[in-house]
Amino acid sequence: MTTTETSNPALAGLSRPARVADEGEGVGLDEIGLAARNHGMPLELLAHDVTPLGAHYVLTHYDIPLADATTWALEVGGLVRSPLSLSLADLQARPVVSRTVTMECAGNGRARLSPRPVSQPWLHEAVGAMTWTGTPLAGVLADAAPLDGAVDVVFTGADHGVERGVEQDYQRSLTVEQATDPEVLLAWACNGVELPPQHGHPLRLLVPGWYGMASVKWLRSVEVVDHVFDGYQMRAYSLRQAPEEEGERVTRIAPRALVQPPGFPDFLSRRRVVRAGPQLLTGRAWSGWAEVVSVEVSVDGGATWVEAELGAQPDPRAWRSWSLPWTATEGRHVVSARATDATGRTQPSEPVWNRGGFANTAPQDLQVLVLAADRGES
Amino acid sequence: MTTTETSNPALAGLSRPARVADEGEGVGLDEIGLAARNHGMPLELLAHDVTPLGAHYVLTHYDIPLADATTWALEVGGLVRSPLSLSLADLQARPVVSRTVTMECAGNGRARLSPRPVSQPWLHEAVGAMTWTGTPLAGVLADAAPLDGAVDVVFTGADHGVERGVEQDYQRSLTVEQATDPEVLLAWACNGVELPPQHGHPLRLLVPGWYGMASVKWLRSVEVVDHVFDGYQMRAYSLRQAPEEEGERVTRIAPRALVQPPGFPDFLSRRRVVRAGPQLLTGRAWSGWAEVVSVEVSVDGGATWVEAELGAQPDPRAWRSWSLPWTATEGRHVVSARATDATGRTQPSEPVWNRGGFANTAPQDLQVLVLAADRGES
Repeated sequence: MTTTETSNPALAGLSRPARVADEGEGVGLDEIGLAARNHGMPLELLAHDVTPLGAHYVLTHYDIPLADATTWALEVGGLVRSPLSLSLADLQARPVVSRTVTMECAGNGRARLSPRPVSQPWLHEAVGAMTWTGTPLAGVLADAAPLDGAVDVVFTGADHGVERGVEQDYQRSLTVEQATDPEVLLAWACNGVELPPQHGHPLRLLVPGWYGMASVKWLRSVEVVDHVFDGYQMRAYSLRQAPEEEGERVTRIAPRALVQPPGFPDFLSRRRVVRAGPQLLTGRAWSGWAEVVSVEVSVDGGATWVEAELGAQPDPRAWRSWSLPWTATEGRHVVSARATDATGRTQPSEPVWNRGGFANTAPQDLQVLVLAADRGES
Repeated sequence: MTTTETSNPALAGLSRPARVADEGEGVGLDEIGLAARNHGMPLELLAHDVTPLGAHYVLTHYDIPLADATTWALEVGGLVRSPLSLSLADLQARPVVSRTVTMECAGNGRARLSPRPVSQPWLHEAVGAMTWTGTPLAGVLADAAPLDGAVDVVFTGADHGVERGVEQDYQRSLTVEQATDPEVLLAWACNGVELPPQHGHPLRLLVPGWYGMASVKWLRSVEVVDHVFDGYQMRAYSLRQAPEEEGERVTRIAPRALVQPPGFPDFLSRRRVVRAGPQLLTGRAWSGWAEVVSVEVSVDGGATWVEAELGAQPDPRAWRSWSLPWTATEGRHVVSARATDATGRTQPSEPVWNRGGFANTAPQDLQVLVLAADRGES
């Protein structure tokens, strides 16, 4: 089948062209509709090595399908010697791997861009690290035996909808080389339970180190093709300045460090309140390119930076904890962190704009009000 | 202790006064910060009798506390003969009740008000129905034995923050009569697993039939007092037109019916696409006041209404399914539903404005594009 895309003139009026917001334009009800159904991870949950079920970020393009695990079949076909149709039981009889992986939405940080690309309005929180269980895709592909001329592997989900007038099932591809990386899993469980509907029940792809768009949920088909797959979602997840540009494809997760917000919040502004005195600033840092080798922290809005101590990492593909003692002094502070990985990639001090609003890793600017320590009551 | 509220002049600049948005003012980054951490239930999950874990709506005022179930103690005290300190094991040794309860945020519908109260911007989706397990509060209160003069019971959570300059632990009260209703539970599990952090781990109050603000999460204290408790969250959840009004307190859930969106969506606008021909419109309806006795459906934006068939209800406090066959004809339709309960309460055709943005039950206006049925490809 390869592509499920169809353009229907009758759908043209349904979706507006991609656009960026006007100067000063607030977020509209379309974006609120997305923000109310999708969600990030409340940042205080950076305290957990493994993100509790239900708190990991969720971004679904279309509806969450109603799927029956007992009849689910994964079709593996295309340019292969031995097409396969695998039930969940078939997959679970294969070698089983569990690992903790940090996943992040490619659009994390989008709503902090100016002008703002109109789409799911993330600030910083579209991230999570769950422990995923599945079987390596490589073994399944080896059994199917791709034939000479195999170029890409196309993954199709059961989720179906329209984007910019194009009706489609959600589809993404990897090259054969990427798809046979032993890290890539066909996953049926997270945090020890079967996948909940919003995370791809009953089966999803998991591509550790890549932004979440690569980890196709509700996976029903794996098809080997003899050409570079250039489907809608491959083109959509590209870094471009203007709509007509080809752009660079979004792939691996750029390094990012987040601060677990200290003290307690104001409900609406989420500004933080801390009592003066010794504090331990902590958080997590990750990169899909290489190990995080440095986290720096600023408490003065980026004017000066101090190296934090790096801590444990539950898995090479999970985030790394970090900490830094801070003597909080009365007044207003702006707290930020930035990560650097072993390839030298780091976070820019200012947002790097692109039209899709992808991979904005400009550091947090956490507003912290430090109050005098000598407050009488508890 | 009763109140945990303290006003500190140093906090005055932290939170802005409550306000409504200016005409045409889009949603701001403060509201996006809330929308990105809190979340509703994607409406296609109305297909489930019991909302899957992680998909039920979440609204937390402050941070989700890090709580240790093994050392958690619920203090029951105040105007009682026998103060109690109960571990989770103590509570779990008491009579155990499990029931499916529809819970809804009082602010559901807020972002559809004009002018828009500035707070968590919900459209329709701040709802869910999980199966909660706990022990009746009434039995625990009976053991503590409230003394003569007991008026209210105050519930205090471990969540701590600032609202409008007032530092506080989240606190709500019920009258002694309301609190000893056998329906009210001290709950430690949902959908068969221990409460996840965002739903109150390890212990929460569950007040079936009431909006979610009554079901205090991370419950650490139950205190019987000799006066009407008038804490911050009692005053905040009131229906008022102007800030200085006393207003009517928000209590039970007003009737609402929601349509499970038919067909498939456009990603950004969430408008629906349906092929012409026979459809079954379905959804759920609930009321915290009485049984739902009628659901009416409109496919023409509220010009005409047709009675739907009522279906099963997994629990008297859960939602009721409904369905209506519909022959979808090519063109644009606006689909809505409205519920009426046994008290005669129903949904208004237009939003009823109040300054807090509570209980806006004006029906959905689901935009549905019906395409010709004779489309060639799959």
